[in-house]
Amino acid sequence: MDCIMEFQLILSRASLLTGRLPVRNGFYTTNAHARNAYTPQEIVGGISKDEILLPQVLKKKGYVNKIIGKWHLGHRTHHLPLEHGFDEWLGAPNCHFGPYNNSDRPNIPVYNNSQMVGRYYEEFEIDKKTGESNLTQIYLKEGLDFIFHQAKARRPFFLYWAADATHAPVYASKRFLGKSQRGRYGDAVMELDDSVGQILNSLRDLGIDKDTFVFFTSDNGAALMSGPKQSGSNGPFLCGKETTFEGGMREPAIAWWPGHIPAGTVSQQLGSVMDLFSTSLSLAGLNVPEDRAIDGLDLSPVLLNNTHVNRPIFYYRGNEMMAVRLGPYKAHYWTWSNSWEEFNQGIDFCPGQEVAGVTTHTQQEHTMQPIIFHLGRDPGEKYPISVLTKEYQDALSRITPVVVKHKNGLVPGLPQLNMCDLAVMNWAPPGCEKLGKCLKAPKSQPWKCDWPH
Amino acid sequence: MDCIMEFQLILSRASLLTGRLPVRNGFYTTNAHARNAYTPQEIVGGISKDEILLPQVLKKKGYVNKIIGKWHLGHRTHHLPLEHGFDEWLGAPNCHFGPYNNSDRPNIPVYNNSQMVGRYYEEFEIDKKTGESNLTQIYLKEGLDFIFHQAKARRPFFLYWAADATHAPVYASKRFLGKSQRGRYGDAVMELDDSVGQILNSLRDLGIDKDTFVFFTSDNGAALMSGPKQSGSNGPFLCGKETTFEGGMREPAIAWWPGHIPAGTVSQQLGSVMDLFSTSLSLAGLNVPEDRAIDGLDLSPVLLNNTHVNRPIFYYRGNEMMAVRLGPYKAHYWTWSNSWEEFNQGIDFCPGQEVAGVTTHTQQEHTMQPIIFHLGRDPGEKYPISVLTKEYQDALSRITPVVVKHKNGLVPGLPQLNMCDLAVMNWAPPGCEKLGKCLKAPKSQPWKCDWPH
Repeated sequence: MDCIMEFQLILSRASLLTGRLPVRNGFYTTNAHARNAYTPQEIVGGISKDEILLPQVLKKKGYVNKIIGKWHLGHRTHHLPLEHGFDEWLGAPNCHFGPYNNSDRPNIPVYNNSQMVGRYYEEFEIDKKTGESNLTQIYLKEGLDFIFHQAKARRPFFLYWAADATHAPVYASKRFLGKSQRGRYGDAVMELDDSVGQILNSLRDLGIDKDTFVFFTSDNGAALMSGPKQSGSNGPFLCGKETTFEGGMREPAIAWWPGHIPAGTVSQQLGSVMDLFSTSLSLAGLNVPEDRAIDGLDLSPVLLNNTHVNRPIFYYRGNEMMAVRLGPYKAHYWTWSNSWEEFNQGIDFCPGQEVAGVTTHTQQEHTMQPIIFHLGRDPGEKYPISVLTKEYQDALSRITPVVVKHKNGLVPGLPQLNMCDLAVMNWAPPGCEKLGKCLKAPKSQPWKCDWPH
Repeated sequence: MDCIMEFQLILSRASLLTGRLPVRNGFYTTNAHARNAYTPQEIVGGISKDEILLPQVLKKKGYVNKIIGKWHLGHRTHHLPLEHGFDEWLGAPNCHFGPYNNSDRPNIPVYNNSQMVGRYYEEFEIDKKTGESNLTQIYLKEGLDFIFHQAKARRPFFLYWAADATHAPVYASKRFLGKSQRGRYGDAVMELDDSVGQILNSLRDLGIDKDTFVFFTSDNGAALMSGPKQSGSNGPFLCGKETTFEGGMREPAIAWWPGHIPAGTVSQQLGSVMDLFSTSLSLAGLNVPEDRAIDGLDLSPVLLNNTHVNRPIFYYRGNEMMAVRLGPYKAHYWTWSNSWEEFNQGIDFCPGQEVAGVTTHTQQEHTMQPIIFHLGRDPGEKYPISVLTKEYQDALSRITPVVVKHKNGLVPGLPQLNMCDLAVMNWAPPGCEKLGKCLKAPKSQPWKCDWPH
């Protein structure tokens, strides 16, 4: 019933919904070289109206589309989910950071569709001290209700269940707090696991399990700089979130579709979160947009018949292709974990790990002679293959034309994450007036966003 | 049918067979502080006649005892298995290193019972270039034959199946070479896995599976200094073989006994290879020797009823207790990976890993303020708990009396691994004359063994 794959992720939820690399869909910055950008409250940009999102295409076949949880594709009104193909939303444009002082920085609003219904740490409580919050339960109930109503109405649906857990600050509801053997982080994982189980059970109970394709994965590797109390582990992999090493990009991925995906299968297929765009459309009998480059592949043959496609994966930080994977080989053209300055402040993306010339704190270029690892025998990227070996030369001679082709065909999108402005923050989201929770925005003073890594 | 446990191992097969720490049974050195000693060909010592081995006790109940494979408890005639409780042996006193030049260093002999039947790389071929060897198949066939004959004769038996694989130099038989996705090392693991499967199947076919307790584990963590082509991975754990970090000491452990050990159980019990001594005797209805300290625990209640015992584990290097584990906490009293001198020669026990003040290349004492890790949230030993926290003080206050009690009760055995001598090597093992393979030993010139780490 499930198929476990090795999954490579791009630093963006935008890629999942557009099937395109961040450098194409605009979710990157050109303010500095190779910077990881994202969408804090002060970001001006967001998902462009020119991008075509998965729910927009699914609508053609009558799908009802809902997102529950974190959006992160821009927080200004025109960037929100209902403007980009979703019919329903319960959740927030950003993560549950906070609590913030409302005069300098407002708490993140939670939306029900296009109206805010409160804010994190105000109407949606998260006790940072005890770690108690019902947030996952709220999102779970919303998901189960949605599934129930669509099943009863016999409507095809797409549910993007994007729980905030297990992002730091880590929380769990009372029933799970203290229950795991891995502290509060483990409690949060346990609650997430229980929630997924309840969702699968509801599909079975409603008799639609054989008609529902379910995919579970994560948006990045464990955030080791928050570890170990506020983060998971990346097992044998090098470094964590924010890096293009395996600990930053390789994820568990489980596909579930009783009667269609053979139970207990393990696939060696190299996949990407962008493939979910193409694969979902294929399963729904729809074509991907033909007027633009789509990076995702239709993996339905892999899932349904355990076939295999040899395909490259490109690892970006901002505007730079840092690395590429082809077959078992991964070639690093640029290495960087974070700056010495940040590292010396105690921010460590690779705690306890250090591979000479690889986990560098200066941006190092290796484009003339990339650092190559064999991820089969060295999944931890600890033993660079000697450039003097035939193996290195053979691998590079296969990788080089793939990289050349990719770079020659690349038309970067307009970078959306270059400009910041306190005035665009969530001061007065739609619906605030009904709640008496509108705040006064400061004067607009846009500046170039500063991305430290 | 199987129970998976977390297993802590001591650097010695002697501990498995005596149920005692190396510092008690003599398998250590006092030539220098905190040195990992073992039994190369030139070692003078071995298992003392004063030690009581598992097969010696099992004999009281009529068990037939056989060892297949690597012995490593001393290679001189009076140290060999048939002198210490085993009835049968096919295997070698040392590992399959070589090939050696017979004038400086003879190849390791392979024994059938008390007579050599040939030598590795001579009669027992291991092609270092292609990686082909039938050694695991030879040991498998010997094991299956032994089980068959004991089952037919309805005799109780103890089989210590100690295959040489997957030690470097790595090999596999033709059927497995090139079959895994992990190179030659993976091929060797695959062959070992297949062999264990065949052994379990034979127990089922002979109808004695419900009467046979099977335990699978390893004698140490992956030998990372040989990696990645000649070694496995330690996943998230710190460092590898030769160290007292988790990567050196924590092992997979699987217990199998259909009808007695509930299928698919996972136990959180902290176990040690020494427990196999006490547990096996308990299952056979025998008592452990009462005239000496036994470090192993009887884990049969854990295996049969999934109970739990809170017990410490002491991690030694030679004559020094380097660390102790109690519950989820591990306290390091001494840290050392290997010397700067050795490290600078390219020998690295912790490739790609570096935890400040922990993976030290000088021997560092922390006895006044041990470095403590919580292995639940930090199995990789990467985040030392701050000494300023209540958690540190609480953990230390529970650990300290356990250490004091252990040290006060410790009577070290006579160190067996202090003296080396080329004259005692395998020049002319019993049986060599029948094969015309006796070699001339040099004059005896004993010296203190030099253990580099």
